[in-house]
Amino acid sequence: MSAVAVVLLTDFGVSDWYVAAMKGVILAHEPATELVDLSHAVPPGDIDHAAFLLEQTWRWYPEGTVFLVVVDPGVGTARRALGVRAAERLFVGPDNGVLSPALEEPGAEAREIDPARVGAGVIAPTFHGRDLFAPAAAALAGLATFASLGEIVRDPVRRAASRAKLDGDRAEAHVVHVDRFGNAITDAREAELLAWLGEARLRLRAGNVDIDGLSRTYGDVAPEAPLALIGSTGRLEIAVHGGHAGTRLGLGVGDTVGLFRSAR
Amino acid sequence: MSAVAVVLLTDFGVSDWYVAAMKGVILAHEPATELVDLSHAVPPGDIDHAAFLLEQTWRWYPEGTVFLVVVDPGVGTARRALGVRAAERLFVGPDNGVLSPALEEPGAEAREIDPARVGAGVIAPTFHGRDLFAPAAAALAGLATFASLGEIVRDPVRRAASRAKLDGDRAEAHVVHVDRFGNAITDAREAELLAWLGEARLRLRAGNVDIDGLSRTYGDVAPEAPLALIGSTGRLEIAVHGGHAGTRLGLGVGDTVGLFRSAR
Amino acid sequence: MSAVAVVLLTDFGVSDWYVAAMKGVILAHEPATELVDLSHAVPPGDIDHAAFLLEQTWRWYPEGTVFLVVVDPGVGTARRALGVRAAERLFVGPDNGVLSPALEEPGAEAREIDPARVGAGVIAPTFHGRDLFAPAAAALAGLATFASLGEIVRDPVRRAASRAKLDGDRAEAHVVHVDRFGNAITDAREAELLAWLGEARLRLRAGNVDIDGLSRTYGDVAPEAPLALIGSTGRLEIAVHGGHAGTRLGLGVGDTVGLFRSAR
Repeated sequence: MSAVAVVLLTDFGVSDWYVAAMKGVILAHEPATELVDLSHAVPPGDIDHAAFLLEQTWRWYPEGTVFLVVVDPGVGTARRALGVRAAERLFVGPDNGVLSPALEEPGAEAREIDPARVGAGVIAPTFHGRDLFAPAAAALAGLATFASLGEIVRDPVRRAASRAKLDGDRAEAHVVHVDRFGNAITDAREAELLAWLGEARLRLRAGNVDIDGLSRTYGDVAPEAPLALIGSTGRLEIAVHGGHAGTRLGLGVGDTVGLFRSAR
Repeated sequence: MSAVAVVLLTDFGVSDWYVAAMKGVILAHEPATELVDLSHAVPPGDIDHAAFLLEQTWRWYPEGTVFLVVVDPGVGTARRALGVRAAERLFVGPDNGVLSPALEEPGAEAREIDPARVGAGVIAPTFHGRDLFAPAAAALAGLATFASLGEIVRDPVRRAASRAKLDGDRAEAHVVHVDRFGNAITDAREAELLAWLGEARLRLRAGNVDIDGLSRTYGDVAPEAPLALIGSTGRLEIAVHGGHAGTRLGLGVGDTVGLFRSAR
Repeated sequence: MSAVAVVLLTDFGVSDWYVAAMKGVILAHEPATELVDLSHAVPPGDIDHAAFLLEQTWRWYPEGTVFLVVVDPGVGTARRALGVRAAERLFVGPDNGVLSPALEEPGAEAREIDPARVGAGVIAPTFHGRDLFAPAAAALAGLATFASLGEIVRDPVRRAASRAKLDGDRAEAHVVHVDRFGNAITDAREAELLAWLGEARLRLRAGNVDIDGLSRTYGDVAPEAPLALIGSTGRLEIAVHGGHAGTRLGLGVGDTVGLFRSAR
């Protein structure tokens, strides 16, 4: 039997034992599971941040992969526990929108996790990650079918992803993530950006600088120079060659990048 | 052959190569091992902190799991190298009390690791984690029996865990850990707390606030309000709904939480 | 089939999704791979730092292990993508010197990675880690031979490691790394240091203190006292018993440690 991977995404950090407890539960249920950390550095309770990380990652994993997503500020309250199947990957997590990237996939299905059906025992009201979601992930990594999780959910919570305003001569993108290198990733996707741009040349106003045109990679401009490019996410990204664009240009999550069409 | 997990707990951090070197040694001895990180963020040399993390975690792992615990400020001195078997899990680490949670388990046995019997080679006086404990963990993850580690140790070092004072009308718990969310976990365990409380209602003085009664989960009080609950550790925990109790209430490790019985 | 380990070393950090995306690609290509993190905390673009971590680690892993090293400030520019075979381990990464520890091994061979031969698809100019190096690592962890990667490279980029000046009565070592505990590791290797020292006794000037003689381990001196020893890297190391030598003695990467021979 080939090992199925369970990929963990939480806001638990790595200084506490919470992630390790979940991993123990998974291995106790399903010893051959391969455990992979997506990230545990999501800011506490930041659902949108976690959803963005999930969106950037899940498609690279093979079919059958189980994503265990626990960013759950409402743990123990009436919010539902969800399983989602999308594009042959499986997702478990709270029904608070954190699984939106999976739910947006055509043909996605959602079910409410029934504790009894996934072999959950006593459930602490403050740690469903360990006591409910980990058993559910282990079940899906093992022989359990998706349908066995519980009843179909027709109205899972979805959170709208940030979208660039791309119409007219003056358009706007918004920074949705600043990565470790300082690259500011926006909500302008390549296809929609190029459709809006047409034959024109792109000019940008990002933080305190003007940028002229799109580069291909960081090294295409002089060291310390700002640039714009379509990043590896398929989105418009603002960077500084060898520097931290977030700091240098004063760009943070939620900030607006002005987009202009000019003659070539 | 199903993979056995070796769970690593150290104060090595993840910026250096120390953890990776230990993992290489384990895989060189026993390639099919599944490697799991419990935490490497233990403050340097903080034996009690590591023991607390181990206590919260080990029971969730399946029988046969090997815990490799290296918080070892006395590395290379006369302190012994220990293997412990408790509740069918196995533990290796220095004999400085870090393995106390395993040693406290009924029926726990301890042995001194004999380097020759676990296939250790040259042992650097400053890195027994790589040169002695990792080979021992790999041996236990493989075919070696616990008894083959070395001679029985009858007097392993134990460190007393912090205990709440629960007698009389005025009692005290002590903060033993503040987690990433700011929740302050105490040494008052549910059973002993409820036995002391009897029919009375619990009132608490935590840091600079009074808290009335036990909540079930964080979302049971208003946002930003403080609360007390029995956390997922089975211990009394002080929290702030959506906030950082440690910072908000001025609570740190070692601080006292006052406990009072009042009429319902 | 026994699992082959792919060991990842990057400057990507663990807050973003970059490492997780690479892991997904590896598992999509080769599901039975065991994934091990060496470190992702390399300072952005710090090739020498990554090479040092690689040097300290690779030899502990079994033959057949694949090291995936992505510290790649020139991503998408003309720099080549490299595979290296040395001592029966395999390495992939950019041709910028980060693989020097492998290239310095006797009998090391280098080849340029041909994207078509490793099953790479579309390659984003800013993320060869995901789109080129991860497929190459997966291929080597699977059935692909080293020779199948691409053409032989006879002039891979090598970076010279820092070397101690060990001649005459006054010699110098240089700090190459300060670890989490504050131990300052130098470029003076044990064999060359002892050959230079001969029958004399070592005296050192490190930061703002004088140290007399070599200790065997940290606990050999009084708490808070500075010491010098041959560390687990086989190099001269400056430490403070129970303290942070970097901070206490004012030692950072690149600083000089004076070495003197005195009569015993």
